[in-house]
Amino acid sequence: MLIFAPILRIFTQNIFTAIGCSEYHAELAADVLLKSDLRGIDSHGVARLSGYVRLWDKGRINTKPNIQIIHETPTTATVDGDAGLGLVVAPLAMDMAIKKAAEYGSGWVSVRNSNHFGIAGYHALIAVKNHMIGFAMTNASPLVAPTFSNEPLLGTNPMCYAFPAGKYPPVVIDMATSAAANGKLEIAQRSGKQVPEGWIQDAQGQFTTDPHALKSGGSLLPLGSNRDHGSHKGFGLGATVDILSGVLSGANYGPWVPPFVSFLEPPANPPGLGLGHFVGAMRVDGFRPLEEFAADMDNWIERFKSATTVDPDQKVIIPGEPELEAETDRLINGIPLVDSVYNDLNELAARFGVANL
Amino acid sequence: MLIFAPILRIFTQNIFTAIGCSEYHAELAADVLLKSDLRGIDSHGVARLSGYVRLWDKGRINTKPNIQIIHETPTTATVDGDAGLGLVVAPLAMDMAIKKAAEYGSGWVSVRNSNHFGIAGYHALIAVKNHMIGFAMTNASPLVAPTFSNEPLLGTNPMCYAFPAGKYPPVVIDMATSAAANGKLEIAQRSGKQVPEGWIQDAQGQFTTDPHALKSGGSLLPLGSNRDHGSHKGFGLGATVDILSGVLSGANYGPWVPPFVSFLEPPANPPGLGLGHFVGAMRVDGFRPLEEFAADMDNWIERFKSATTVDPDQKVIIPGEPELEAETDRLINGIPLVDSVYNDLNELAARFGVANL
Repeated sequence: MLIFAPILRIFTQNIFTAIGCSEYHAELAADVLLKSDLRGIDSHGVARLSGYVRLWDKGRINTKPNIQIIHETPTTATVDGDAGLGLVVAPLAMDMAIKKAAEYGSGWVSVRNSNHFGIAGYHALIAVKNHMIGFAMTNASPLVAPTFSNEPLLGTNPMCYAFPAGKYPPVVIDMATSAAANGKLEIAQRSGKQVPEGWIQDAQGQFTTDPHALKSGGSLLPLGSNRDHGSHKGFGLGATVDILSGVLSGANYGPWVPPFVSFLEPPANPPGLGLGHFVGAMRVDGFRPLEEFAADMDNWIERFKSATTVDPDQKVIIPGEPELEAETDRLINGIPLVDSVYNDLNELAARFGVANL
Repeated sequence: MLIFAPILRIFTQNIFTAIGCSEYHAELAADVLLKSDLRGIDSHGVARLSGYVRLWDKGRINTKPNIQIIHETPTTATVDGDAGLGLVVAPLAMDMAIKKAAEYGSGWVSVRNSNHFGIAGYHALIAVKNHMIGFAMTNASPLVAPTFSNEPLLGTNPMCYAFPAGKYPPVVIDMATSAAANGKLEIAQRSGKQVPEGWIQDAQGQFTTDPHALKSGGSLLPLGSNRDHGSHKGFGLGATVDILSGVLSGANYGPWVPPFVSFLEPPANPPGLGLGHFVGAMRVDGFRPLEEFAADMDNWIERFKSATTVDPDQKVIIPGEPELEAETDRLINGIPLVDSVYNDLNELAARFGVANL
C-alpha cells in the first residue's frame, strides 16, 4: 500500500489534533513522524502513531504541555517537557539551542519529563538548516544489557551528529548504540527469521539467534556485541546518552526510563521525570568561515565515496545518503505501508472520526 | 622493571626540555604521558617518548610553538597549534574551553596544526576537575577502513566523554572508534599471537586473525567489525571525530592525517595543517545544581555496578574504573616498563646527557 506523503501528513496531524494537540503541535509531531517514514525508517514513523495514542489513553502523554526552561546559562538550559510528546518537546528544545548558538556560538539543551522523540536525525537536521552542526540523543526504555550483564539496563539510546556540507547533502550519523536497532529485530520476529549472532542474548546471557529471546528475559547487546569486539564501547556510548539525557536533566535513567508500550507500567519509585533528551547546536562559522568548511566537507565526502571497495559494485556509503535517497524516492512515489500499519491507522480514523486513509 | 612515577616524570620532563620545550610545556607534556602510564594505557605513555623525539628530529614537531586562537565566538574557538606537541596544545585548548564554559556555560575548541595528544581521557578530565563535563577527541593517521572498503582512511580516532560524580570517581568513556585499539594489535604482534576475527582485514578486505596483516596492506575494522554487526556505526563515529577535529579546524582529515611514525612521510598535497583535535566543556550547574547531579550519578553508578551478571565473579565495569584502579596501584607500586621501552628511554638519556633511569 503506497500513500502519498501529503495525505499521510494531514491524516497524522488530524489524529494528533483529535487527542488534544494544538494545531501547531500537531503539525510539528506529524512532521517528525513523516520525516521518519520518508527517510525509510519505517519503525519510527506513523507505525508508532497508535502507540502514542495508547500512551495518551493511559494519561502518560500530556497533549497540552507547558514546556518550560527550568534552569539556564547563556548557552545551556534544562527544559521540562511537562509529559508532552517528545515529537513536540525535542524540536522546541532544539530551537532554543539554535537561538543560543546564534548569539553565543553554541547552545545545549537537556530535556526531562518528555516522551519518545522519533528519529534523532530530525532534530539534528534543524541545526543543519541553520548552518550549524546538530547533535541529538535520547534515552529510551531498557532493552540493552551492559557488557558482562544479562540485565537490560539501557535503551537503544540513539545519538545523532549532523554536519552541513557544500554541494553535497549533509552528513548525518544517526545510530542506535546497540549492535542492532530494535526495529530490525521486529522485522525478523514478524518474518520468522533468525538474526545474526551478536545482536541479542537470552536470559542467561548466552548469544542466541532467536529474535523472540527478548520477550523471554533476553536483551539486546551493545554495539561491539561482546567484550572482545568492543561491546564495552557500545555500553559506554549508551551510558553517555543516558547521562546527558537523563541524569543531567533530572529525567529517569537506566532501568527507570518509562516504557513506550502502554501495556507495561512505568517502574515504581522513579528517580526522575519521564524520559530525557539532549540536543545541541554549534555554529560552523564559530570555528571557520562556512564556505571553507563546506569546501572541505565536499572534499571529505568525495574522498570517502571514491574509496576502493571489496566489491566494486558496493561503494562506501556516506552516512545519511541512503536516508536521503529514500526521501527523494518516497516524496515522489509515496510511502509504503504494511497492512498491519494501514489497518491500525484506519482504526484510529474510525475511533476519532477522521477520514480513512 | 618498575619505575616510580616521580622519577619517570622528571626523566620525561628533562627529555622534553632537552629538545627545546619551555619548562612549563615540558611539565605539561610529561604529565600527559605519565597519566597514561599510571592509568595502565602503556601504549600511549612514555613508550611513545622516543617517537615524539624522532618527529622533532624530522622537523615535524615545533617545541617552541606560538599557539594562537585564530577564530572565535564567546563559546567556540579554533586554535592553531603551530606544529607543537599535541601533549601541550590540547590541554591549553581545553583550558580555553573551560574558561569559556565558566563564563557562558559551555566552551568548544577545535584545533588544527597539532600532533598526537596522548590519551583523550587526560584532556576531558581537566574539565571534570572544574565540575564540568569534558569532551575530547582527535583524529589520527589512517589505519581503519570504512564499511565495505579495503582502504584505511580513518585513524582509530578516539573520543572521550567524562562525567563528574559525587562520592564515586568520575565516569570516563575513553575509546577508540575501531573494534580494537592499535595498541592491542601491537601486543599480539610482539607475542606472536593471533587476534580475534573482526579486528582486522587483509589487503583484499577479508577477515584475518594475523596481527601482521596491517603491515601488508590490511586495515583495522571500525567498531562493529562488519555491516551486520554495525560497523557502519563505528565508521560514523570515526567520521564524526574526523570532521569535528580535522574538517572543522582546518587540519588534515581522512587519509591526509600525518603519520605518527617518523619513517613514513606525511602525504603530499595535504588539504590542511597537521592533525586536529576537538575539546569541550559544559558546566554541570549550567543544567542542574551540582549536588543533585552528583547524587543521581552516584545512584546511576550503584545501579549499574549491582547489575546481575552472567558470571557472578565478573561484575559490570563502570567506564573509567579499571584505569583509576591502575592509577592507585601504580602511584604506590611504580610503573612497569618492558625492557624495550626501558632501553629506548636510556638511549634518549645518553643522547641528551640526561641521568639514566
